[in-house]
Amino acid sequence: MIKINENYKKLQASYLFVEISKRVSEFQKKNPDKEIIRMGIGDVTLPLPAVCTSAMHKAVDDLANAKTFKGYGPEQGYDFLREPIAENDFKSLGVSADEIFVSDGAKCDTANIQELFSQDTVIALPDPVYPVYSDTNVMAGRSGNFINGRYENFIYLDSTEKNNFIPDLPSKKPDLIYLCFPNNPTGATAAKDQLKKWVDYAKENKALILFDAAYEAFIRDASLPKSIFEIAGAKEVAVEFRSFSKTAGFTGVRCGFIAISKECKVWDKEGNSHSLHALWNRRHSTKFNGASYPIQKGAAAIYTPEGKKEVKDMIDYYLTNAKVIRESMEKLGYKCTGGDNSPYVWVKTGKPSWDFFDFLLDKTGVVCTPGAGFGACGEGYVRFSAFNSKEKTEAAMAKVAEFVK
Amino acid sequence: MIKINENYKKLQASYLFVEISKRVSEFQKKNPDKEIIRMGIGDVTLPLPAVCTSAMHKAVDDLANAKTFKGYGPEQGYDFLREPIAENDFKSLGVSADEIFVSDGAKCDTANIQELFSQDTVIALPDPVYPVYSDTNVMAGRSGNFINGRYENFIYLDSTEKNNFIPDLPSKKPDLIYLCFPNNPTGATAAKDQLKKWVDYAKENKALILFDAAYEAFIRDASLPKSIFEIAGAKEVAVEFRSFSKTAGFTGVRCGFIAISKECKVWDKEGNSHSLHALWNRRHSTKFNGASYPIQKGAAAIYTPEGKKEVKDMIDYYLTNAKVIRESMEKLGYKCTGGDNSPYVWVKTGKPSWDFFDFLLDKTGVVCTPGAGFGACGEGYVRFSAFNSKEKTEAAMAKVAEFVK
Repeated sequence: MIKINENYKKLQASYLFVEISKRVSEFQKKNPDKEIIRMGIGDVTLPLPAVCTSAMHKAVDDLANAKTFKGYGPEQGYDFLREPIAENDFKSLGVSADEIFVSDGAKCDTANIQELFSQDTVIALPDPVYPVYSDTNVMAGRSGNFINGRYENFIYLDSTEKNNFIPDLPSKKPDLIYLCFPNNPTGATAAKDQLKKWVDYAKENKALILFDAAYEAFIRDASLPKSIFEIAGAKEVAVEFRSFSKTAGFTGVRCGFIAISKECKVWDKEGNSHSLHALWNRRHSTKFNGASYPIQKGAAAIYTPEGKKEVKDMIDYYLTNAKVIRESMEKLGYKCTGGDNSPYVWVKTGKPSWDFFDFLLDKTGVVCTPGAGFGACGEGYVRFSAFNSKEKTEAAMAKVAEFVK
Repeated sequence: MIKINENYKKLQASYLFVEISKRVSEFQKKNPDKEIIRMGIGDVTLPLPAVCTSAMHKAVDDLANAKTFKGYGPEQGYDFLREPIAENDFKSLGVSADEIFVSDGAKCDTANIQELFSQDTVIALPDPVYPVYSDTNVMAGRSGNFINGRYENFIYLDSTEKNNFIPDLPSKKPDLIYLCFPNNPTGATAAKDQLKKWVDYAKENKALILFDAAYEAFIRDASLPKSIFEIAGAKEVAVEFRSFSKTAGFTGVRCGFIAISKECKVWDKEGNSHSLHALWNRRHSTKFNGASYPIQKGAAAIYTPEGKKEVKDMIDYYLTNAKVIRESMEKLGYKCTGGDNSPYVWVKTGKPSWDFFDFLLDKTGVVCTPGAGFGACGEGYVRFSAFNSKEKTEAAMAKVAEFVK
C-alpha cells in the first residue's frame, strides 16, 4: 500500500497571503472607489535590464539554428555564467568558478540542500523567517510537533528589537544554521563582527551555516559584508545562496546559484569527513538538469559593464523607495529597521500585526504584510516592501501621513 | 556536528558516460584521421520549432516593458500553458488544467515525487532503467545495500527478450512502481492490455504507478496508448510525467509537467486516504517557484496548429533515422527492439555490451551506449539513438554495414 510521508501532516497551512488577499478584496467590495496600493509584495515591478533581454533574444536565436543549437547543458551551469560570477561576486574571496552551482533560483536551492544531511540534524532558524527554511525541514522529519506556535525540535533564533534583529548565539547546539542578511522580512543587515561570531561558533561546534544572501545587491554601506566569505574561515563552515530575482528582476525568469567551497567539510557517523561540494554535485546532477540556456545567457549579461550599470540603477530606484517608506514612517513616530541596505522596512506598529494591517487598509487603502505571518517574533510588526513604483510608493506614504496619527 | 545523509554513501558512481568518453578519446588519439559518429547520445540536435522561438522572443519583449512585465508566476504554471496541455494531451481522458503541474523538466519531477512517500515504501523499477528512479530512492534511504550488482530492497522489473521488454507483474508486492513507455533505453512500447494489467494490479494492491511518458510523441501506431490515463481507472492509481525535451527539442530550455488526477489517493499509517494532488501541490509550491515565463510561452506555442505541424515534422525526422538504424542492424542479423514508436533502438549484440562497444568503435568510429550501463538486464545489448542528423545516421549505418559481419 502506498503510504505518505507522515511529516507532511505536521505542516501548518500558510494563510498569510491568502488571508491578506481575502481582506483586501472584502475592503475593495465595501469601498469600490478607493485605490488600493500594495506595499506588501516581495515581487519586483521594474522590467528586466535591457542587456539581459538582448542577451536572451540572442540566445533564443541560437536555439533556432542547428549550428548554434544547445541541448543539455552542464547541470552545474555554463562556464560563461559561472566564471563572471566567481570573478565579480567573489573576487579576492577565493571562490572559483567550479565552486558555483547555477540553478533555477534560490528558493529551490535553500529548499533542497537539507537533503544532504542526516535525519536527526538539529536545525536553527531565524524568527521571523522565510518559511521555506522551516517547511522543508518539517517535510524531512526534523521538526517534531507544532506546539504553542512553534515546532518543538527547531532552535528559533529570535530576531527582536532587543538584539537589533541580529540573533544571539543559541544556548542549545544546532548542526545546521540558517541565516539571511540583508534579512527577509526585517531588512536588518549584519556587520562583519556579527557574522564572525557565527562563523567562529560554527567552526567550534562543527556546525554548518546556510547563508542566504538573496538581497546582497541592496547593500551600499561599504563596511557591511556582501558575502559571508568575507569572514575569515567561512569557506570551511558556510554555504552561500544568491539569486538574480531581486538583483536584476529575475523573479519570473528563474536563476540563482550556490557557492560551496571545496574546503567545506561535513561528517559521517563514523566521524570521517566528506566534501560538501561533492555531495551537492551528486544531488544537483542526479535531480536537476541545468538552468535554461537563454536564462543563463541573460544572467551572464548582468556582469558586463552595461549590465552592472543597469542593475545599479534598478537597485537605486528601489532603495529610493525604501528610503521614502522608512523616513515617512519614522516621521510619524514608528520605529523602523531596514530600508537603507535592504528593500524591506520592518515597522514596529505598537499593536498586533493584523490590527495594524486592518487599520492601515481601512484608513488608507495601503496594503502591508503582517509580521506575525513570518513567526512569533514578527507579532507587533509589519513589513513594507520597496518594490512598487516610485509614484505609488510616494502616494501610499502621503496617504499614510494624512490618515495615520 | 553537521552529519551527512548516510544513504549517499550507498550510491554507485555512474561511470557509463565518463567511461564512454574516455574510450572515445583514446580511440581518437590512436586514430586521429578517423571520423567519430556519436549514436549513443540521448540529446536532441534539431533546432527549436520556429513557433517556439518566436513565442519566446515575444515573451522576452514582455519582460523588457514595465506594462507587460511578469514577476513570480503561479508555481503550478500559467493557465496559458496548463489549458492547452489538458485540452490537447488529455482531451477526452478527463484530466483538467488544474491537474497539470508545469515544471522545469521531467528529470526533476521524477526525482522529486518520491519525497511524498513514507521512508519504508517498497520500490519497483525496471531493469534496464533510467538511473534517476533508482538513485533518488537510494538517497532517500529505500534501497538497502548494493549487493552483487543490485540494491537489496528494490524490486527489479526485468525487461528482457523473454517478455518482449515489457516486465511481468512482480512476485513481491511493491508500493511504488516506476514504468516508462516508450521505454528508455529499450525503445519498447506497451499495448493497452499490457498497461491495463499494471493498472489493475496497482488498484488491487493500493500501489501507485509513476508513468514516465517522456517519449510519447514518438508513438505513431494508433493502437498504442500515449497516456496511461487511456486505461480505465488509471487516474486513481497513476501519475504521468511528460516532457517537452524530446517532443520539441527543449533539452536545454527545460520544461515538463506532471498530470495528477484529483481522484488519485494515497494513505497514511492510520489508513486514512489523502489526495496526492494536494500533497504534490504543497511540495511544488514550497520547493519550486514556477517554470521560467518565456520558456512556458515557448512550450505553449507547441499546441498551436503550426506548432503541432513543426513538432510532427521534427519527430518524423528522428523516426526516419530510427528506422534506418533498425533496418540496417536487422539486415546484419541483429535482433532489435524499439525504433518504430521510439527514438531508441535496442540491439542484441551476441557479446558483452562493452566488448561490442569497443568492437564497433574500433572498426567504424561509431559510438553506441553499452546496455550494461543501464542495469544487469542491459548486458548483451547496446542502445542506438535517433537524435543525430539524417546524414550522420546514414553514414554510421553504412560504415557498420561495411565493417561488421
